[in-house]
Formats: sequence, C-alpha cells, structure tokens
Amino acid sequence: MYSLNVRDHFMIAHSFDGEIFGPAQRLHGATYVVDATFRRPELDGDGLVVDIGRAGDVLRDILDAMNYRNLDDEPAFAGKNTTTEFLAREIWERLARAVGAGELGGGARGLASICVTLHESHVAWASYEGIM
Amino acid sequence: MYSLNVRDHFMIAHSFDGEIFGPAQRLHGATYVVDATFRRPELDGDGLVVDIGRAGDVLRDILDAMNYRNLDDEPAFAGKNTTTEFLAREIWERLARAVGAGELGGGARGLASICVTLHESHVAWASYEGIM
Amino acid sequence: MYSLNVRDHFMIAHSFDGEIFGPAQRLHGATYVVDATFRRPELDGDGLVVDIGRAGDVLRDILDAMNYRNLDDEPAFAGKNTTTEFLAREIWERLARAVGAGELGGGARGLASICVTLHESHVAWASYEGIM
Amino acid sequence: MYSLNVRDHFMIAHSFDGEIFGPAQRLHGATYVVDATFRRPELDGDGLVVDIGRAGDVLRDILDAMNYRNLDDEPAFAGKNTTTEFLAREIWERLARAVGAGELGGGARGLASICVTLHESHVAWASYEGIM
Amino acid sequence: MYSLNVRDHFMIAHSFDGEIFGPAQRLHGATYVVDATFRRPELDGDGLVVDIGRAGDVLRDILDAMNYRNLDDEPAFAGKNTTTEFLAREIWERLARAVGAGELGGGARGLASICVTLHESHVAWASYEGIM
Amino acid sequence: MYSLNVRDHFMIAHSFDGEIFGPAQRLHGATYVVDATFRRPELDGDGLVVDIGRAGDVLRDILDAMNYRNLDDEPAFAGKNTTTEFLAREIWERLARAVGAGELGGGARGLASICVTLHESHVAWASYEGIM
Repeated sequence: MYSLNVRDHFMIAHSFDGEIFGPAQRLHGATYVVDATFRRPELDGDGLVVDIGRAGDVLRDILDAMNYRNLDDEPAFAGKNTTTEFLAREIWERLARAVGAGELGGGARGLASICVTLHESHVAWASYEGIM
Repeated sequence: MYSLNVRDHFMIAHSFDGEIFGPAQRLHGATYVVDATFRRPELDGDGLVVDIGRAGDVLRDILDAMNYRNLDDEPAFAGKNTTTEFLAREIWERLARAVGAGELGGGARGLASICVTLHESHVAWASYEGIM
Repeated sequence: MYSLNVRDHFMIAHSFDGEIFGPAQRLHGATYVVDATFRRPELDGDGLVVDIGRAGDVLRDILDAMNYRNLDDEPAFAGKNTTTEFLAREIWERLARAVGAGELGGGARGLASICVTLHESHVAWASYEGIM
Repeated sequence: MYSLNVRDHFMIAHSFDGEIFGPAQRLHGATYVVDATFRRPELDGDGLVVDIGRAGDVLRDILDAMNYRNLDDEPAFAGKNTTTEFLAREIWERLARAVGAGELGGGARGLASICVTLHESHVAWASYEGIM
Repeated sequence: MYSLNVRDHFMIAHSFDGEIFGPAQRLHGATYVVDATFRRPELDGDGLVVDIGRAGDVLRDILDAMNYRNLDDEPAFAGKNTTTEFLAREIWERLARAVGAGELGGGARGLASICVTLHESHVAWASYEGIM
Repeated sequence: MYSLNVRDHFMIAHSFDGEIFGPAQRLHGATYVVDATFRRPELDGDGLVVDIGRAGDVLRDILDAMNYRNLDDEPAFAGKNTTTEFLAREIWERLARAVGAGELGGGARGLASICVTLHESHVAWASYEGIM
C-alpha cells in the first residue's frame, strides 16, 4: 500500500460540554497541525498517489473554512463537542466529499483510504482513518 | 478507526545478554519517549476515544514504576533482554491490564487496540500493537 | 555559557485588534508549546544550571494561570494584543519574578538570562530573551 | 504486531515528465529522510524484531547506491518518474531482496512486512508498505 | 530581545567543486527547510516583531526564485559552491534588501538582526545571522 | 556569523549524588541526542564553516568513547555529577581540543565558537557554548 501525506494547520477557539472535560469546559483554543494521508494499492499513470499540489490546495480550503474561528459559533457544530478526534473525522468527511466531487482529479477515485491526524500539542494527537 | 495518542518519557539503565548486542552488552542506558495510542471504531458519548487526562495519568504511573531504575535489577525482567521492542510490549500489557481494571473509565472497554511506541533516539524506535 | 531548557504547553482563546491582523481579528485560539531556557556562565555546586524539577514546576504554575482561558477576558491583558511575541515577554516577566522570589532555589540567582520561546505551529514561533 | 524503525537519509537530483508536475519538470533535487520499519508478530530468540545494527547497515548500503546522484542518469530509472512514492517502493524492493538473501540474518525471514517512508520536507512524505 | 520565526522550504539540484566535497562533487540535490528569524529590541505599535503574513510572503518569493532549479545553471551563483552556509547568507542578503525596500512594512526597519537557517537533513543544518 | 550543525547520539548509564536529584540518585540512564554547532565570522576558501564530514567523524569518535557505558565507572568523571549540562561542557572541551590538534582541518582554526547541545528527552535539553 502506498501513502502520501501533506501537512498544514489551523487555529480555533472552542469550549467543551461535560464534567469530564474539567477546565477545558471554559472557552479556550488550539493550534491543530493537520496531516492528511492518502492511501492506494497502486500508483496512477504519473507515478503518484495523488497530485500533491491539488491535495494541499483542497486541504487548505477545508481548513480555511474553520481557521481563525470560534467553533462554538459554527452552526455545523451546534450541540457537538469539537474534540480533536471529532474534528479529525469532520475533516475526513470533507476530504472524502472533495475526492468524490473530483477536486483531487479523476485518478484520486482510486484511493483506498484517507487518514486525518490532528496534532494538538507536542504530546497529544488524534486521528480518523476511513475507507473510501 | 479513531486513534488518540499521549506522549511521555522515562529514563533507565540496562545491559543486554548475547553477542549480537556488541557494545550494548555493557551496562548503559536510554531515554525512552513513549507514545501510547488508543484506537476504537466509534467515539464514546462525550465524543472521545478515551479521557486523555486519565490516559496520561495511567501511562505516567506505569512509566514511574520503571523510571530512574536499572532494569537489570528488576525481578520482573530477570533473564530477559529489555530491548526497546520488549519494553513496548511490556508497557502494552500494563496498559491493557489498566483498561481491563477500569482505570481509564468504563468507556475505555470499547477500545479496539492499543499501540505503544518507544523512541530511543532521533533515528530509532520500536512499537507493539495488540488487539484488546 | 550554559543553557538548560524545559518544555511545556498551554491552550488559549484570544482575538487581535487592528487591520494588520486580518482574519485573526476574529475570536480564535492557539496551542503554545513553551520552551523556557535558563542561562548562566558557571554551574552551581551540584553541577546544575537550575534544578530542572523546580524549573518545570514554576513554568507549569505560570502556564496554568493562563491555560484553558480566553485571554480577551483577562484583566491583566486588557487593551493589549496578546500576540505570540507579547506572551513570550509576559511569561519571561513571570519567570524572572519567580527567580527573584527564590522559587527556583537560591542558586538560580546566579542566572545570567532567560529566553522564553512560544511555538504556535510547525512553521512559526516567537521568543523573548532578557538579562536577569 | 511488533515494529522496529531505523532512519537515515540521501540527497539526489531528478526531474519529472508530465504537465501535472508543473515547475518540478525542471531539474531540481531533494533530501529524503528515510524510515525503514520492520514488522513481525513475535520477537526472535534474542528479543528482537531484527538486528538494528545490520538493518541500519543494509539500509545505508541501499541509500549509498543512489546518494549524491542525478536519478535522471540512472539506467535503473530510465523512463520512470522518480517520485517520492516511486522511490519508497524501489527502496522497499531492495530491502525485501536483502532480507531474502539473508543480509539481515536468518531471523529476519520471520518478518511479516516492511514499510519504507521518505520524508521530502517538513510538510510532505510518502511511503510504501508491503507484505514479505 | 524579541525574535519571530517563519518556516518554509525549497528543493534544488547542484554540485560542488573541490576534492573536499567527495561524492558531493557529483550533481545531486537537497530539500532545504528554511527558518527566517527576525529580531528587534522592542515590539512595534501593534505588538509585533514583524507582520508574520508579510514576512512569510517575502520569504516565499525569495525561495520561489530558486525553487525547482539546478543552481549550477544560475548566473547569480556562477563560480560559487552553493553550500548550505553559502545559501543561508544569500537568502539573508535578499531578506535584508527586502526589508530595506520596505517590503515587510515600515516597522520592519526597526529590526536589529535577521538569522536564516537551512536544515538540509534531520542531522545537519547551517545558518547565517547578520545585523541590519 | 555563520553556524554549521551536525547531530549524533550516545546512550549511557549514570547516577547522581545529592538530595536535590531525588529519584535520579538511583542508577538510571539516558539517550543524549547531541548537536555540535560550529561558528565563524567568514567562510573558508571552499565556502564552508568546517568540513561537515570531518566534523561528524570527530564528534562520532568523542561520543564513542562514552557510548554504551556506565559513566559512574569512568575515571575521568570520578567525583562528578555527569548532569546533562556537565556533559555538554565535557564534549565541548574534547571538540575544542580536536580543533586545536587540527583534526577538523587547518581551516577549522578560524572558528569563533562551538556550542554543544544535549537533548535528553522531548522536553529537556542543555548546552554549553564557548569561545575558541
């Protein structure tokens, strides 16, 4: 299996609902350094997993829609705890839709799976990997 | 599949038995930077893989039991070569027992697997991943 | 010159005032991974720059006072843009006061300077270094 | 499953053929930081995945055969785009052959799979993982 | 003293002239991950060292002029060994000229010094720091 | 000022004497990832700070003399606490002697200073910088 990874980041505010979150129930924030990893069993005709330029552009667009925002105010996340693992899945869904819509090129329809990892500090990260 | 990772470290002395180890047969030591990665197919009711605070505390307790010690003197490791890969498995066993005992909360019983990675330098690491 | 560094992190929300900040004028947030570097020309009697345990504890206390907060609501920062470089200086001031108050031990009064670095992403950081 | 990783690097020139590559159609180059990860279900009699010294030596030899070269001039790559993902597979093939030839020791024949990752910058990497 | 750093990268081919370079006399290449660090004794009126957005844009423009090229063919480098330390100085000169030309804003004329670091692998880097 | 850095590592056992060290009074160990940074105001005739190959070899020889050892048994360190900051200075002394003896080539006599940094974990490091 081949994998290709691109990295970018976004910076948001949010708060969590539930005693288990302790002081993170207060409004705070995070920098998320995001790895989007694309996997497929065979390379396409150009010797690529995906066009890394287009993959980076699509990831940048998805992150820009959340960047420099308070996620507590986003209708898409109403009633949700935007934990790191939740956001990894959310970005995965948006990447999967972009692949389905052909935004990464026709060859990207040969992808087997995508993994999205959000690094929230030097000691903690979460990811979601799903089959396409 | 969702994953959540916490990182910590411990520092030990040890020596290895067997010609294959060359100069590492002498008493020496290592800093191990440890990644404990917890995986599950669906998030729990709080939108979490595990409570990251409890996961970090349980990992810290497990590492404290070995930290600042000469592993050659630990009865638990008598007759064993405490290689990086061996220690990854050992810490995995202790984490799996803690999960089974409910130390990471009831929700952690939904975990599918745990992976423990020990980074021994900037150029070498070993891991053990097992199904719960 | 000897240096000793300890690393920790904190997570906050804030917004900036001024057109130069573009979308960062909106409420957003950041994870700051903090390096506190202590420097002195000669080691103390124990062969140390400072007691690394005490240094880590003092840094942790300073970061806890800001952690999981919206800095826009903190009276100490009223009317200020809490940029990365501003926060580096602020943490430096608090560390310098802790050293002056003897919280890092009497030996720490021999420190020549302290440098505080805040990493806000994998591509950006800021620091403040000042003589004691 | 146990994994053991060794890291090294090599530096090459190359160019790509195809409009999709944009400015990378020009002769340019890259540093590839290489992770070779060896996996097996059980440790060998010495408590090892593979002899890390031999693994590092075999990887070094494979990288030396490409290091400080213009890959466009290498007969082995004639008519190929030596993309990061292509080179990950190429190094995997050479490692697999070395394992088959006994260069990592007889125990290495118990390996389940090998993964080769090439980091081409702080924001991009590619890998190939294959079963032995 | 305050510092602010932005990171980016570029990928080039080149060769070196002189026996001391051994196999690096052959045409090869490198990825350079570049840190541009700006220093000043006091922050500007917005609480900044420099506008990080403009700093990143100016650095990107400077790197784009060399990116995906064979430096042996660049007239600017004729008769020079484009070593990592040489290129750090070259990028420093171009950044200093951009500051002088006002491309980082009028406030950037208060900069005390700039340091440019080029990471060529996980084990080697070089830098040039100069007073403005 | 130009700087050039090479990185390597060594693994040792040791213990510390003094209540301030708490559990580190027990025999334990560390991996030290070592950065040796060489500085000079002007490049030599080959466009170099030092010959990076020779610098790496000399550093490797110095680290090999301590690698895979219990520093408590080394006569050179009798009665000393081999703290991270102490070892940084010790390696600096040995590098400075190697430069004086011409082991890095005649050009290395133009060095202005050397800085030696020992990373003992992902959260702590110490260094010593001295003028040549």
